[in-house]
Amino acid sequence: MELIRVATVESPLTDRAAAPKQGDEGAPDADLVFDETMSPGLEGLSPGDEVLVLTWLDRAFRDVLRVRPRDDFNRPHQGVFSTRSPDRPNPIGLHRVTILAIDGPRVEVRNLEALDGTPILDLKPLLRTIDER
Amino acid sequence: MELIRVATVESPLTDRAAAPKQGDEGAPDADLVFDETMSPGLEGLSPGDEVLVLTWLDRAFRDVLRVRPRDDFNRPHQGVFSTRSPDRPNPIGLHRVTILAIDGPRVEVRNLEALDGTPILDLKPLLRTIDER
Repeated sequence: MELIRVATVESPLTDRAAAPKQGDEGAPDADLVFDETMSPGLEGLSPGDEVLVLTWLDRAFRDVLRVRPRDDFNRPHQGVFSTRSPDRPNPIGLHRVTILAIDGPRVEVRNLEALDGTPILDLKPLLRTIDER
Repeated sequence: MELIRVATVESPLTDRAAAPKQGDEGAPDADLVFDETMSPGLEGLSPGDEVLVLTWLDRAFRDVLRVRPRDDFNRPHQGVFSTRSPDRPNPIGLHRVTILAIDGPRVEVRNLEALDGTPILDLKPLLRTIDER
């Protein structure tokens, strides 16, 4: 089960400790820069679309099964699968963003808390209601 | 970027062509059977919790960038990143389910459209509102 990088995050965020924990907690706009070979996969996306970005959190720790949520030392440890901690066996980040602009292989999105240089694995539209699918 | 299997789907679904396309389109209940070493990661989860299951869709095609959504030959091709097709460069499935029961490393969930034997990569809680995090 080997992943490939389909795109890379370009963002002003470079420091994990200073980054917001979620996109709606003050994250900046960022660019998803796709590999040219992936461009056909972007057909059908438009500004205004809400999408899920899947990233590989390459600065996370994978040998962690219990954490204190939100790095808060007043909270008890919990299993990582009951938290959104980036530290977990498969550090896949899941980010809900809105597309602001698309310029060739460059997709600008609102409120992404992933760090600059983070590999992007996938982009998926939000599911619509059953009769709109 | 290499993934590890943290759990495996046990489900009555075995045939891709016969499986529902999404969990809310008639998918059965299924079990997520965790590797014993992963059990500490489950602490803090309870029946009734809504979670996201990330799977590795091991029967998908990875060399596909354009598809007809929902295998409907009347619809034009679209880029895979604007669809939820299982066929895509990194075939990671994203499934929203409700936990029905937890028995040691076995987590029973409602409405999962993943096939029997599918590797599970991660489990994440749904994000709550900002002041509940």
